[in-house]
Amino acid sequence: MKNIYVTKPYLPPIDKYEEYLTKIWNSGVLTNNGPLLIEFKNKLSEYIKNNNINLYCNGHNALECAIKGLNMKKGEIITTPFTFVSTTHAIVNCGYTPVFCDIKESDMTIDENKIENLITDNTVAILPVHVYGFPCNVDALEKIAKKHHLKLIYDAAHAFGVFKNNSSILNYGDISMVSFHATKLFNTIEGGMTVCSDESLSHKLALIQNFGISDYEQVTEIGGNAKMNEFCAAMGLACIDDIDLIIKKRKEITFDYLEKLEKIEGIKTFKFDDEGIKYNYAYFPIIVDKETYGMSRDKLSEKLNENGIFARKYFYPVTSDMECYNENQNFKDANVSIARSVSQNILTLPIYYDLTPQDVKRICKVIKK
Amino acid sequence: MKNIYVTKPYLPPIDKYEEYLTKIWNSGVLTNNGPLLIEFKNKLSEYIKNNNINLYCNGHNALECAIKGLNMKKGEIITTPFTFVSTTHAIVNCGYTPVFCDIKESDMTIDENKIENLITDNTVAILPVHVYGFPCNVDALEKIAKKHHLKLIYDAAHAFGVFKNNSSILNYGDISMVSFHATKLFNTIEGGMTVCSDESLSHKLALIQNFGISDYEQVTEIGGNAKMNEFCAAMGLACIDDIDLIIKKRKEITFDYLEKLEKIEGIKTFKFDDEGIKYNYAYFPIIVDKETYGMSRDKLSEKLNENGIFARKYFYPVTSDMECYNENQNFKDANVSIARSVSQNILTLPIYYDLTPQDVKRICKVIKK
Repeated sequence: MKNIYVTKPYLPPIDKYEEYLTKIWNSGVLTNNGPLLIEFKNKLSEYIKNNNINLYCNGHNALECAIKGLNMKKGEIITTPFTFVSTTHAIVNCGYTPVFCDIKESDMTIDENKIENLITDNTVAILPVHVYGFPCNVDALEKIAKKHHLKLIYDAAHAFGVFKNNSSILNYGDISMVSFHATKLFNTIEGGMTVCSDESLSHKLALIQNFGISDYEQVTEIGGNAKMNEFCAAMGLACIDDIDLIIKKRKEITFDYLEKLEKIEGIKTFKFDDEGIKYNYAYFPIIVDKETYGMSRDKLSEKLNENGIFARKYFYPVTSDMECYNENQNFKDANVSIARSVSQNILTLPIYYDLTPQDVKRICKVIKK
Repeated sequence: MKNIYVTKPYLPPIDKYEEYLTKIWNSGVLTNNGPLLIEFKNKLSEYIKNNNINLYCNGHNALECAIKGLNMKKGEIITTPFTFVSTTHAIVNCGYTPVFCDIKESDMTIDENKIENLITDNTVAILPVHVYGFPCNVDALEKIAKKHHLKLIYDAAHAFGVFKNNSSILNYGDISMVSFHATKLFNTIEGGMTVCSDESLSHKLALIQNFGISDYEQVTEIGGNAKMNEFCAAMGLACIDDIDLIIKKRKEITFDYLEKLEKIEGIKTFKFDDEGIKYNYAYFPIIVDKETYGMSRDKLSEKLNENGIFARKYFYPVTSDMECYNENQNFKDANVSIARSVSQNILTLPIYYDLTPQDVKRICKVIKK
């Protein structure tokens, strides 16, 4: 029987990609704000109803540019440890100190009620994560940020295609960062995007992502190279019209899972039913309760592997407990018990565009036994 | 008459690229150490006779990974200001202090005789640049680095295809960084490479460029995302067999320029005749002597522009004088008078694979007048 992996990149028909390839060969422009990048940017602006966007070689570089672009004094950034390690690395690489806030069990996003206790004179920003595409409590976070004069940067790596009251979730905060990595529901091979609250910030990020070059003889910002090239923009263009179809398909898979798993004791699923939210069904996480299910998350993961099914312990361990941060006592002492507990019991099941009902059946059968 | 730009990306026949595209659609792997990346790495290893190579999304990210990977205590890095701004930004972004050493008029590389005066207790490394593909005095630099226990990192962004005594110039120093940007003689759309002196260092860079992930549940380094994707590796594969042809063509253009410009008073060209060096003819720089030529570099540049020829003031200004570093008094005080003077009088003329003898004639005619 064929192996089922946790994800599989969405690919457009090759002919469609080759049409863009021909355009590249005709223009002779391979990167540096080429015609396809501009076309793709316009399509994205239309989709999220925001013109202040920048495109990057990958999501991580986008997040580092976002943090640098806000020009904050060096200090602490309140964030979540329940995320892909990129979030924490970006903060550290930019010279800031992550201060970890616990998450909510309900949707695994940062617990907005625990943030204010962590704010000190050194706090400069809050960096929450729309983890699995579940939107944070954006209204509460905005209030806290405003009250304490903090910047608000969303790691929205998982959140492309999520809307709240018909507005893209990416329009919240000072900046939202999206990943278009191959493993995401919508990809540009590798890629990333920032969405800014205003034009001048977006312009500044454009400088930072291209060495700070403002014209041939002027370098006005200390930057690097985080540009998206034409081949990645071409992939985005070849897929963007399929975005509704992709999300529709993932929704069907999600509800198929929910139906099949709802009666299994000890397997907790997540509802996709918050009012006003249009989900993107980016991931399908489950929580394994060892006592009632009768088997630990790790054992279930092994059992799935034995059956050729490769679910992922996403996100384990929490970033504050990772080996590279072992020498940081503050990280170890972080009061993030819910994040740690969720991290030990969570498993994300396979979900991708062409995962079939038979695949879902096969996966759920292993979990049922 | 058509415009002539300073450079133009080398593109393989589109059919050849599409063959690799088909392989990508078949594998379904778009990035993360895919089969094309591995194939490309093997080809490069063969070409430069070194297995310790890593491939990156771009050269700048490669340089930052190189600096981080050497695990040096924070301190000073002796470098040249006569380079693309990426070199200086990378040092600063990684938390080190650039200390600028002057260059030699003869080949515009760092003046090895002026380095030792700049070494202090805080010096941790030397970061020279094989500018325009002209090799630094690698033997002298190695001696200095060894004597003072300093790391030696080459910015070899321009130096792919340069050999010294039949060994790739990239095999010198602890690490050499190469750029495969579209504008380079050999490109992977955007891309970069590091060449390390030993395997463990190369392994460390592999971690740093992929979030420090050593296995599914272990993150052992603080890293980021600097991976090269399969579409960029495909471009490299589609071009790598043409490398000798590309360099041969550039050599012809170079000697055509040299012949046509040699008798023009006040236009200094560079000889490509160092014993034991196989050049790559990456750039064709000239120095304009205002007095004897009767016109400044800036005026000549304008005149070329008026004739549809877009040469570049590469590299002007020197990086230590750039606006983003204006507030740094040490940068302003840097004793780099030769670099400053060269920077004010240099112009790089168009050179690329399909620049024709007629184009060269047209360019030289404007310069002659």
